[in-house]
Amino acid sequence: MTFIPAELIKKKRRGETHSDDELNFLISSFTSGQIPDYQMSAWLMAVCFQGMTDAETATLTRTMRDSGQVLDFSRLRRPVIDKHSTGGVGDKTSLVVAPVAAAAGVPVPMIAGRGLGHTGGTLDKLESIPGFSINMTLEEFQSRVGTYGLAIAGQTEAICPADKKLYALRDVTGTVESLPLICGSIMSKKLAEGLSGLVLDVKYGSGAFMKTLENAKALAQLLKSIGERNGVKVVALLTNMNQPLGRAIGNALEVEECLAILRGETQEHFADTRELSLALASWMIVLGGVRPSLTEARGLAEEVLSSGKALKVFEETCLRQGARALGPLPRAKHQLEVNATTSGYVATMDTESIGLAALLLGAGRFSAKDVIDFGVGLECLKKVGDFVEAGQCLFRIHANDQARVTEVQKRLLASVKLSAGRPLCPPLVAETLA
Amino acid sequence: MTFIPAELIKKKRRGETHSDDELNFLISSFTSGQIPDYQMSAWLMAVCFQGMTDAETATLTRTMRDSGQVLDFSRLRRPVIDKHSTGGVGDKTSLVVAPVAAAAGVPVPMIAGRGLGHTGGTLDKLESIPGFSINMTLEEFQSRVGTYGLAIAGQTEAICPADKKLYALRDVTGTVESLPLICGSIMSKKLAEGLSGLVLDVKYGSGAFMKTLENAKALAQLLKSIGERNGVKVVALLTNMNQPLGRAIGNALEVEECLAILRGETQEHFADTRELSLALASWMIVLGGVRPSLTEARGLAEEVLSSGKALKVFEETCLRQGARALGPLPRAKHQLEVNATTSGYVATMDTESIGLAALLLGAGRFSAKDVIDFGVGLECLKKVGDFVEAGQCLFRIHANDQARVTEVQKRLLASVKLSAGRPLCPPLVAETLA
Repeated sequence: MTFIPAELIKKKRRGETHSDDELNFLISSFTSGQIPDYQMSAWLMAVCFQGMTDAETATLTRTMRDSGQVLDFSRLRRPVIDKHSTGGVGDKTSLVVAPVAAAAGVPVPMIAGRGLGHTGGTLDKLESIPGFSINMTLEEFQSRVGTYGLAIAGQTEAICPADKKLYALRDVTGTVESLPLICGSIMSKKLAEGLSGLVLDVKYGSGAFMKTLENAKALAQLLKSIGERNGVKVVALLTNMNQPLGRAIGNALEVEECLAILRGETQEHFADTRELSLALASWMIVLGGVRPSLTEARGLAEEVLSSGKALKVFEETCLRQGARALGPLPRAKHQLEVNATTSGYVATMDTESIGLAALLLGAGRFSAKDVIDFGVGLECLKKVGDFVEAGQCLFRIHANDQARVTEVQKRLLASVKLSAGRPLCPPLVAETLA
Repeated sequence: MTFIPAELIKKKRRGETHSDDELNFLISSFTSGQIPDYQMSAWLMAVCFQGMTDAETATLTRTMRDSGQVLDFSRLRRPVIDKHSTGGVGDKTSLVVAPVAAAAGVPVPMIAGRGLGHTGGTLDKLESIPGFSINMTLEEFQSRVGTYGLAIAGQTEAICPADKKLYALRDVTGTVESLPLICGSIMSKKLAEGLSGLVLDVKYGSGAFMKTLENAKALAQLLKSIGERNGVKVVALLTNMNQPLGRAIGNALEVEECLAILRGETQEHFADTRELSLALASWMIVLGGVRPSLTEARGLAEEVLSSGKALKVFEETCLRQGARALGPLPRAKHQLEVNATTSGYVATMDTESIGLAALLLGAGRFSAKDVIDFGVGLECLKKVGDFVEAGQCLFRIHANDQARVTEVQKRLLASVKLSAGRPLCPPLVAETLA
């Protein structure tokens, strides 16, 4: 089917709904270069103002998925499940969730991302393990998931080229912020993994893309709708990102925290990381059909964690992907403390600002070309609801470059607000959309 | 000043107001090719949704004007005045207005347009006079206005290149319909004429771009504001286009009607053309400072018309621009009548449909490449409020190609609605914004 691009732009400008054929035409013609950037960017801006229905968004996503290679695990005759997080600060659960689910018998084809801005990326964290590499073909990736139950790769040119081209255009035309376009971008890549089910960790709060639970819920509902309209079961957990998750922020530091959890340690400082990882893994076990109920799935998840089976899966996966051992990991040269100047309960934390502090130390990228310093980062020693005495340590900074430490200290001190009364601590998982 | 284009797009997307520097940067960088089409089209779409303030629109227009050559008549030491119409069916007043104003002593640098769609263009009408040509340099044009008081030219590449580039992009990106962009496009070309004053004929009704008086008034107010913010006095007449203007529709036929008026004829069929031409010319005479009041200006306009002075100016202008004589003009081979099938008062006329009927005969262009047939067109023998007996002639068709006549007859018959009671006839000039 062929359409006149300017007429489709006007249709969306008027707020009308596109047919499947129209969306297929738009995306495939844009990807092949038949629709020029200047028409696509006008259409994208019209979408920013007029939105898309859930059905339109699901079709857009499917068309984007089909612009490249789509993995096929049907020969495994088992549901293949992945987990995706919308991104947060100290958000390291993938490193626990994936091996726990795989150890429980759920095949996990994890195509993970890199950090950009104040949120970290799973691949960056894993690459702080000396030797770890995602260097494999999609065929090798697919075969490893079948044979070992877990493989971890990164985005390639072969998957969702439409998304890459669209994202590059959105980035320079002020059309990034649009719920259907954001959800289409996230889900097209997940759908290309050939999943049966997906567990979403949709974060809300001061360190998340969505600042309010309400907005995060709208995002979760649309992501779920897109998945389900394309035959993928989706469970979405709405989780609190009004403070960093766990203790560590920074690549090697976060890997250490995950290894401690995988070794069965249960420190209070990272109880939230452990709890959220188990909650997400349990849903993967349910969607994977390994256990019929969430309670039984949780039992299995705790079992593979405490038995060391999940650690073994993680270690073997890393060794298979080039790691020489799970340590020693890079460490920063300097450790400095940020101490409270007054006493009180930790009332709020500006989590995005804490993420940016880690970024300033070199733990992330301001632009795609920046090189990450794996050893640097922060330890977050007090969380919302904790009582702090003046002079007590709030954060421990791990730095290689002392030049930026003063700025980081200031930023961290300003990020924490103390109060005289004990604040209410909201639950880690606010809501589950199953 | 330099800005980040994506940030400017986002600013407009959020509905914020651009500074003069930002608009200058956007338009001049786009014209020079430094801002690519894909960013400009996203910005244009954001403008379609968020609009622009009057001050932004005036700055946009000035920047567009300054993208090319701007005429300068300051050495004449007299106000230089033009007239512009937003376009209608049978809208031929320029051919009377310009010579009347020039004969009254107002220098008129008329850069006229061509027809596209159901409305005609002044240049096409003039080119039905054998030999007439707009072939002259801008320097010749400027010098002729000084020496003779009137010259008629067309758009050139040297005037408002930004408008040409913007319009071409808007045309293929669904961003034509936007009041500030429309007004910027119209006024940038008029401002480039180096005018002191401009009389606008803003049409409303079934044959106009604006279907309602309300919308036409908004257009007129914005056009006036742009002019005045850029130092040009603007008077806007809001005029009725719920029926064709005058008797003739079609290039040579319309020239004949204007020649009749310039010769002093006062037929009822084109009384409206004569009246509107005098009204517009009177305002030009006032803005030109030749007479202090509209009443005195009107007296002078009628005088130069009845004395034949205006006809002489028109004839000399045409001869100077290559015409061999003011006739004979091209005539179509066939004349056919469209007769009423019932009796009644003409209640409404679908004027756009009547314009399209003339277009079907070859009087205009469906696309920019079409060649105009100068002799074809329509005579409109009944107007709103006239009583028609069944069998009486409503329209006379002038055709060269009989193949399309049946369709044209059908369309014309359907365009006129008769009623038993006599309808109210709205005034020709609904309002004057002085």
